[in-house]
Amino acid sequence: MSDRVKIFDTTLRDGEQSPGISLDVGEKLEIAEQLARLGVDIIEAGFPIASDGDFEAVEAIAKNVRGSTIAGLSRTGFQDVDRAWEAVRHAERPRLHVFIATSPIHMQKKLRMTPDQVKDEAVAGVGRAKSYVDDVEFSPEDGSRSDVDFMCEVLQLAVDAGANTLNIPDTVGYGVPEEFGKIIEYIREVVMGDYVISTHCHNDLGLAVANSLAGVKAGARQVECAINGLGERAGNAALEEIVMALRTRSDYFEYLETSVRTEELARTSRVVSRLTGYPVQYNKAVVGRNAFAHEAGIHQHGVLEDRETYEIIDAAMVGQEAAQIVLGKHSGRHAFADTLTKMGLHVQGEALNSAFRRFKELADRKVEITEADLEAIVAEELGTGVVHRFTIIDLELSGGTKRTPSARVVLADGEDGTVEAEANGNGMIDAAIAAISEATGVKGTVLDFKVSSVTEGGDALGDVVIQLECESHRASGRGVATDVAEAAARSYLNAVNKIVRLRERPEAPREQHVGP
Amino acid sequence: MSDRVKIFDTTLRDGEQSPGISLDVGEKLEIAEQLARLGVDIIEAGFPIASDGDFEAVEAIAKNVRGSTIAGLSRTGFQDVDRAWEAVRHAERPRLHVFIATSPIHMQKKLRMTPDQVKDEAVAGVGRAKSYVDDVEFSPEDGSRSDVDFMCEVLQLAVDAGANTLNIPDTVGYGVPEEFGKIIEYIREVVMGDYVISTHCHNDLGLAVANSLAGVKAGARQVECAINGLGERAGNAALEEIVMALRTRSDYFEYLETSVRTEELARTSRVVSRLTGYPVQYNKAVVGRNAFAHEAGIHQHGVLEDRETYEIIDAAMVGQEAAQIVLGKHSGRHAFADTLTKMGLHVQGEALNSAFRRFKELADRKVEITEADLEAIVAEELGTGVVHRFTIIDLELSGGTKRTPSARVVLADGEDGTVEAEANGNGMIDAAIAAISEATGVKGTVLDFKVSSVTEGGDALGDVVIQLECESHRASGRGVATDVAEAAARSYLNAVNKIVRLRERPEAPREQHVGP
Repeated sequence: MSDRVKIFDTTLRDGEQSPGISLDVGEKLEIAEQLARLGVDIIEAGFPIASDGDFEAVEAIAKNVRGSTIAGLSRTGFQDVDRAWEAVRHAERPRLHVFIATSPIHMQKKLRMTPDQVKDEAVAGVGRAKSYVDDVEFSPEDGSRSDVDFMCEVLQLAVDAGANTLNIPDTVGYGVPEEFGKIIEYIREVVMGDYVISTHCHNDLGLAVANSLAGVKAGARQVECAINGLGERAGNAALEEIVMALRTRSDYFEYLETSVRTEELARTSRVVSRLTGYPVQYNKAVVGRNAFAHEAGIHQHGVLEDRETYEIIDAAMVGQEAAQIVLGKHSGRHAFADTLTKMGLHVQGEALNSAFRRFKELADRKVEITEADLEAIVAEELGTGVVHRFTIIDLELSGGTKRTPSARVVLADGEDGTVEAEANGNGMIDAAIAAISEATGVKGTVLDFKVSSVTEGGDALGDVVIQLECESHRASGRGVATDVAEAAARSYLNAVNKIVRLRERPEAPREQHVGP
Repeated sequence: MSDRVKIFDTTLRDGEQSPGISLDVGEKLEIAEQLARLGVDIIEAGFPIASDGDFEAVEAIAKNVRGSTIAGLSRTGFQDVDRAWEAVRHAERPRLHVFIATSPIHMQKKLRMTPDQVKDEAVAGVGRAKSYVDDVEFSPEDGSRSDVDFMCEVLQLAVDAGANTLNIPDTVGYGVPEEFGKIIEYIREVVMGDYVISTHCHNDLGLAVANSLAGVKAGARQVECAINGLGERAGNAALEEIVMALRTRSDYFEYLETSVRTEELARTSRVVSRLTGYPVQYNKAVVGRNAFAHEAGIHQHGVLEDRETYEIIDAAMVGQEAAQIVLGKHSGRHAFADTLTKMGLHVQGEALNSAFRRFKELADRKVEITEADLEAIVAEELGTGVVHRFTIIDLELSGGTKRTPSARVVLADGEDGTVEAEANGNGMIDAAIAAISEATGVKGTVLDFKVSSVTEGGDALGDVVIQLECESHRASGRGVATDVAEAAARSYLNAVNKIVRLRERPEAPREQHVGP
């Protein structure tokens, strides 16, 4: 058996299905590039049949991201498989991931199929995938609640039809480690052939990481997981925890290795958090800001004496050192571009100009611009990789305990025009949103609003992520500024610009049929 | 063996030691009351020797909170034990929790004691505790990295000296479930006497819940855990996950029961998050806002057909239904007071008047005031339970992309006086903070700044928590308003008021010596 565990990242598929996350192609590409830099073996880039947007994102990732296998998810129907292949076929190493549910409740209530029909579907779907590519993965959805012998029959058929990875999902997070490990062990005994066994565990009871690792202990050599533990409901096993548990307890895990460059974990976590708008809990293992005691200045006595008194992971190993101060208001365009390149952010042309302008604006108000600040600026300006229709020329805000909060906004509209509006609101952010809605004619509903500070201290950048819904379109926007109301206005306008683009290319809503 | 697992909550001790959390007596009391309402068996209220503030909080909880055992943590020295007893002795059911490290690294580097000295200390500390109270718990700190036979010797001595609970800490989160379960099993075989065995697991590798449950499977009948998984570094096992795993997989966990009223879990999580300023990850198991698929409107097909297709826990069972709309701008004082009482919030006298005034202000700007809004208002107004020196009379803010952000503030100072100031800043919040600093003469450093929205939608309340440091004093403040800059100003002023009080009663800084 291999002495390596493959890391299969599903941040862009299962993670992206979390409510309120709606990444566009540019954002998905940015995450995929960071995942490749992190060194994951397989990137599940999306579910191509789900929507045109999903298809385009998977295709773009397959065409542009090098170093990792790119997988596309698919149900067993030929239309699904064909579409998935169409999206991933440009990849350096494409994989098709075919699934069908095998638990009684899913077969009866969701699929409305008999067990025999499910077997036929599995064989047909895997066979179709195999006709396109050698690297085929098969998942029996809701595996942990399936009759284990029936599931093994289906798995055997899948292997015989050409699947070379068998992924066992604990779709509803029902498993406990001892039991889940035994299922993996049993499958390995019963299902004959040459295949890699994989785990896909959900965290509904807080056991996703433990279940995945029990799977590894029982012979699994691929783990499906997601950055920051994103995913449906309580999410998937957190990639960073899986990797660091294998490394930190390599004595227990038989010195199994992964290809992950752990020093990229913290940055990957930040990129995903910023682009999805999902905050990372302070006390999150490995990537939370409290994960390392010595940074917090507590446990001081023990830590000073010997770091290992209270810490089992070195902060530097996961890239969790404090962000270095890199630039200030006197830094020029060359230094700026150079720093972005060193950080692995590829920004060119008009996007670079626009990011540099924002950098100078911020540097005028803020003494030190850190790496984390730069990431945020680039995320705001370049998240979409396309030119925005509306940009802010001027924004004026006033409010207080006795004044009615009000906002006035002047926006550039395309190349030449300008639009402007004034409005009141419950607060200044509310007023700014109303004024922008008025000026742009896009009146959406704010589904979610999240503010965080990028760096610490009084002059921290405010980073606002807004989820906007307008006439069945949904978009998220991000804004960064030293003033939180300005950041909110920027983020709202950003979302409005996306809605404008979505309107121009109407798209069928994503199908609500999701995978393992 | 008992068919119940005792839930020992350490949110107020291990959780409160997280960086940036500094709860005052009133806030700790509020959390303790909610924990008692939740039905936990034991509340570890603090570490009385650590500081005068810790002592007072433990004492206040022991005197006021009924229904749960109240525990105080203590090292083995007589001064520690005596102080802990002094704090908890008023409780309905007091417990003393004595600990000393047994791992080679902790004994050598931190304690600088020989193994024999550690044994003597354990016996002496437990004996002293037993002289005060029958209910004595003993913990060998860093148990999972201790020589297991040496640890068992110490445990045997502790039992012989009168300990009736033996708690096995995985202090650095190094354990894996199989191994940790075997340690518990081994202790139960080797250590003779009548005692309850307990687990205390940290989450550095994401395995705290799994390790605790492996302990239960191996015979542990107490689990130490914390709401939202708070605690040093990556935190402790999350109470809500432990309780729901035991219940959801009762088939696997031999139908063991806990006394927790699960329908209070969501509210307890909210109260702790709001008072500590620690956000809960959206994808947090059980209490995260995504934990239930049907709320998010995804997995729709399957969920509509049958909830159990994708969900294993009922949202109502953990109190995760949407907050009900309870009050509007026409609601009177009686309805307001009545609603608070129904919510279990005990607010009276001047505090009630002040909360009602804030409620009316908010209701003027916001159509619907939900239960979550009310919790936030009460948290802002009553967090400290004492009268503030400074209160806002007027606040004016202005800013924008081309204006210099500025603020003007007029504050009432005590009964009669007023103070006022104007200032500019990097953003309006920064300007408001500068103006308040100027007016009050309290110039602190903002260590942490967190904004969240209490409810959803455009007219959501902004909830700001600020951590402030000023001349070695630290305080957190909370502010709620429809305008986020106003909320920030309120939260900063709240922290300033606390600093003013701390200055009046200077206190030695808390000792940096923490427990299991």
